[in-house]
Amino acid sequence: MSQSMYEIIKHLFPICRSITGPGIQKSLLYFEKLVPNFKRIKFKSGSKVFDWKIPKEWHVKNGYISGLNKKKYAEFKKNNLHLLNFSRPIKKRVSRKELFKHLYTLKKQPNSIPYVTSYYKKNWGFCMTENQKKKLREKFYDVLIDSKFKSGNLHLSHAVFKGKSKKEIFFSSYLCHPSMANNELSGPAVLIKLAEYIKNKKKLNFTYRFVLLPETIGSICYINKFKESLKKNMICGFNLSCVGDDKAYSHIESRSGNTLADISLEEALKGKKNVKRYSFLRRGSDERQYCSPGVDLPVCGFSRSKYGEFPEYHTSKDNLNFISKNGLKNSFEVMRSIIDTFEKNYYWNSFPKSNILCEPNLGKRNLYPTVSQKKNYGNLNLRMDLIAYSDGKKNLIEISRIIKQPLNKIFSELKLLKKNKIISIAK
Amino acid sequence: MSQSMYEIIKHLFPICRSITGPGIQKSLLYFEKLVPNFKRIKFKSGSKVFDWKIPKEWHVKNGYISGLNKKKYAEFKKNNLHLLNFSRPIKKRVSRKELFKHLYTLKKQPNSIPYVTSYYKKNWGFCMTENQKKKLREKFYDVLIDSKFKSGNLHLSHAVFKGKSKKEIFFSSYLCHPSMANNELSGPAVLIKLAEYIKNKKKLNFTYRFVLLPETIGSICYINKFKESLKKNMICGFNLSCVGDDKAYSHIESRSGNTLADISLEEALKGKKNVKRYSFLRRGSDERQYCSPGVDLPVCGFSRSKYGEFPEYHTSKDNLNFISKNGLKNSFEVMRSIIDTFEKNYYWNSFPKSNILCEPNLGKRNLYPTVSQKKNYGNLNLRMDLIAYSDGKKNLIEISRIIKQPLNKIFSELKLLKKNKIISIAK
Amino acid sequence: MSQSMYEIIKHLFPICRSITGPGIQKSLLYFEKLVPNFKRIKFKSGSKVFDWKIPKEWHVKNGYISGLNKKKYAEFKKNNLHLLNFSRPIKKRVSRKELFKHLYTLKKQPNSIPYVTSYYKKNWGFCMTENQKKKLREKFYDVLIDSKFKSGNLHLSHAVFKGKSKKEIFFSSYLCHPSMANNELSGPAVLIKLAEYIKNKKKLNFTYRFVLLPETIGSICYINKFKESLKKNMICGFNLSCVGDDKAYSHIESRSGNTLADISLEEALKGKKNVKRYSFLRRGSDERQYCSPGVDLPVCGFSRSKYGEFPEYHTSKDNLNFISKNGLKNSFEVMRSIIDTFEKNYYWNSFPKSNILCEPNLGKRNLYPTVSQKKNYGNLNLRMDLIAYSDGKKNLIEISRIIKQPLNKIFSELKLLKKNKIISIAK
Repeated sequence: MSQSMYEIIKHLFPICRSITGPGIQKSLLYFEKLVPNFKRIKFKSGSKVFDWKIPKEWHVKNGYISGLNKKKYAEFKKNNLHLLNFSRPIKKRVSRKELFKHLYTLKKQPNSIPYVTSYYKKNWGFCMTENQKKKLREKFYDVLIDSKFKSGNLHLSHAVFKGKSKKEIFFSSYLCHPSMANNELSGPAVLIKLAEYIKNKKKLNFTYRFVLLPETIGSICYINKFKESLKKNMICGFNLSCVGDDKAYSHIESRSGNTLADISLEEALKGKKNVKRYSFLRRGSDERQYCSPGVDLPVCGFSRSKYGEFPEYHTSKDNLNFISKNGLKNSFEVMRSIIDTFEKNYYWNSFPKSNILCEPNLGKRNLYPTVSQKKNYGNLNLRMDLIAYSDGKKNLIEISRIIKQPLNKIFSELKLLKKNKIISIAK
Repeated sequence: MSQSMYEIIKHLFPICRSITGPGIQKSLLYFEKLVPNFKRIKFKSGSKVFDWKIPKEWHVKNGYISGLNKKKYAEFKKNNLHLLNFSRPIKKRVSRKELFKHLYTLKKQPNSIPYVTSYYKKNWGFCMTENQKKKLREKFYDVLIDSKFKSGNLHLSHAVFKGKSKKEIFFSSYLCHPSMANNELSGPAVLIKLAEYIKNKKKLNFTYRFVLLPETIGSICYINKFKESLKKNMICGFNLSCVGDDKAYSHIESRSGNTLADISLEEALKGKKNVKRYSFLRRGSDERQYCSPGVDLPVCGFSRSKYGEFPEYHTSKDNLNFISKNGLKNSFEVMRSIIDTFEKNYYWNSFPKSNILCEPNLGKRNLYPTVSQKKNYGNLNLRMDLIAYSDGKKNLIEISRIIKQPLNKIFSELKLLKKNKIISIAK
Repeated sequence: MSQSMYEIIKHLFPICRSITGPGIQKSLLYFEKLVPNFKRIKFKSGSKVFDWKIPKEWHVKNGYISGLNKKKYAEFKKNNLHLLNFSRPIKKRVSRKELFKHLYTLKKQPNSIPYVTSYYKKNWGFCMTENQKKKLREKFYDVLIDSKFKSGNLHLSHAVFKGKSKKEIFFSSYLCHPSMANNELSGPAVLIKLAEYIKNKKKLNFTYRFVLLPETIGSICYINKFKESLKKNMICGFNLSCVGDDKAYSHIESRSGNTLADISLEEALKGKKNVKRYSFLRRGSDERQYCSPGVDLPVCGFSRSKYGEFPEYHTSKDNLNFISKNGLKNSFEVMRSIIDTFEKNYYWNSFPKSNILCEPNLGKRNLYPTVSQKKNYGNLNLRMDLIAYSDGKKNLIEISRIIKQPLNKIFSELKLLKKNKIISIAK
């Protein structure tokens, strides 16, 4: 895969996606070509999944408002956010008053087109900026929405990479949003790079599962189909959403807040600047389904600036300028570090133990200065503290919390101390 | 009962009560007429209760200090607080110096008469304002206290309303204080209204017990007589004191701080302004007896401005102006809401459980907007959160704490979700 | 023993000690004369203890830097801190540049000589003030260090006072530092006074063990020799270091932070001003060995201003002016109060229980005022609270924490209440 995450997003940005229809199908196909392990799964229109019914496919070609002088407004072809997503077809002359009932704007962000949907109730509408709306002063307008609902399928795509253990690490993101960059092309872009990273590993200790789907109805379908297997094998899962900016690192807790996913993410974010932790009460993406009562999967959410917390969210301002290559890369690195930790198998079931009673003589091993002076020993504190707590009873997560050092620093120190036969690892 | 709580207090205010004698007997009779379920219980003077001996009845007719020019001071007939409560009789000419040994004032509140008692050691004395005391400049004064100690009984009154379950909810207040309004005619007034409320209920799931007694010695007598039954059946109890003002809501914890009484009161006060929680170290009323080691009843204290925390406390300024109809009503409502919660039996042994895997489709039930926009969904968060935590393993108190919503809001939401078959209640 | 702690320190201050050699041997002898129960233990040079090898004895006679004009600098005979402690012998003319590689100063404390050591790697060097160093402007200097390493022994000294129980309370301090007062002659001085205090007790419920040794290597030797017995019997131990000033009270936690030593020290320091609690991450003295994994002794550190936290630490400014008689006395008192608490056997296995149901009538026993007024009852709250929590289920430490009163106040109150038969002690 030669494309960068940013290029992937740039390529997919113009497509008008929705929860069903050609937009998401085409987008899924693009990812399946990047990592061919991804396989399509389809759910028939009209079939029942738990409390929901699969909607028909939405096909849309055109849409606009036209003044009597033929001037066009809210043109779908200029920005697909202009259409109420999943809008029913309409071709009609309407009064300004009636039109306004079907217009969506954001008064407080007068230059942004909002992203609005109506999946489960037939409706029509246009979204535009507050300032654009103010220009609509004629008495009548012609509205056109050239859309169709066709029986077909809801599509999603997933890939499973088997490891030595059946225990699974799970990554999920969604692909139903039209032209917005951070929410949500950043999640799929990071996810596909993680899949590629796993694909290229020679040896896997754990099994990895990746899913790309339409939000809500997609994860409900996926849970409906794979519930038993997911519940049996998943030990840790992440919902990736809004991972393309570089402002914060956000952890949206699982329902219990203390799954292995929460612990892993907490550890991975240690030492980062601007880490924000949100309780499950602040949820908003597919963790809502994965953590619902009776489903109870160990999934937490990972975002940079969390959905709903940045003004560009769900507007036309969430564009290619809002995200950055660096933001995407750093998000990838957080998830990759979790994978690495799992693969090293150090994370939660390794219990370091000092081989030596009392403190070891580090000076004779060149691991400590031989002249003892009054000064700050800096990183040597980590060394001494790691030894001091390596009592064979605490795993690395616990030690990391006690000595207040990030796991990655502890890992490299541990390697050194193992090499010097000061510490052994009991499992 | 046509009288309002405020009228009850106004009627009883002038009476000179003490822990024994005609004042408290007359006051108890008044309550027994309001709710005839109340029955009198008597304890003979001189009999032993635990570490204490029942004092004789105190009968008082008159009392004052008189200057040699016949000018009277500290006249009992003008304000019964002027007498040291439970004072022995005296009629004597005394020097100013000797008189001053028997005068009680408050230097820091020079216009307030303090309330002072001496129940268990024979003593005589007068209480007056600091400013009144300053006017006593003659060399000799005649003091008169026309009181008598007679063998008789300590009186208290109680009412038990039997419900389906023998498990009891308990309310206690005290009636031994002379002319003060908040401390303590407010407690008995609220208590009698609660008794009336229970009396008028057609069906009771729980048993309710109400007691009106003299403070300390009264609750000790009551415990002495009913200890086994109280310990066997009481699941929750409240000592009502100083519930007539409208400034704060105070929770004085039981000894352990985590009885069902504490939990119930905490829940009932959620969302109120100016809630204050005091540890048992700040106790001061009959919870001292109910929670004593070996007695261990699940009783906490409920006050508005807590005794000892407002300057008018135990002075002549705790008068009919200090309390308010609104204050009394709001105190009643807090206790009533606890009763209602118990009667609904939802409180601690109901475990709501979602009937649906993954989130339900609320839009199709008109319980959620079908157009999805970027905005604050306000109360709908409560709906979604209640569903999200209805896993059949958490009771309503736990859910209320997790989702940070008061129980009353949760109750009405729960009703709606049950009606819509989204949630069931497991017991 | 007629010497005060201050006099002991003053007497020993001039001696040049190190971890081996005549300085520490002479100093140990002095303590052995003060309390003859102390016995010497020797460890042969070159023998192995855990990860370490006992160094040879260091004998030093003289040392200085001499300019070509014969002016001397960094003279050992003027202040033994001028020599790098454990320096190898040297007699040589060296360039200014080479000399400077062997000079140790403190740039930020330009008038203090630092204390620097090099025990396990042969090295030579001088310590001086930054301002002294600035005067060294000649091109060549003659350096002389007249020291020798001789095969011999590492010396330490200990005393065990047997009590009724084999369970031990342990005190350790170290004596390897040259001319510094607080760190570390204060610890040995307080320790010897505690040993004397124990020696003079007619009856001991517990066994007490005291050790004086060179830091690090000494405690490692001691653990090596007595590990089984220490692990079997020690219930509580303290490492005394920097206990001679009067500024703060510092508690350096044991590794777990909740041993009986931690609890005892926490209780003993309650009510003191300027108490500082440091986690084991801030350790720095022999608790490093006593609490190391696999050794796991219940030892915490006690200091006044903690080592490393005051600027005079490990410099020539840690002199006889830095410590005070009052500081030493107050440190002694803290440790003595812990001993007393153990000897009273009240500490952790006594469960006070009220003999009386409901509150006792304290007035009739003259333990409470008989006239009840509105005022602050001060210490009487302690009395009432102690009774209220004496339910036979909480030990005195728990009660002390609940009622927020120091144990010593609780002890005297308890005595009074026992005498009045209000409370009994269950064990």
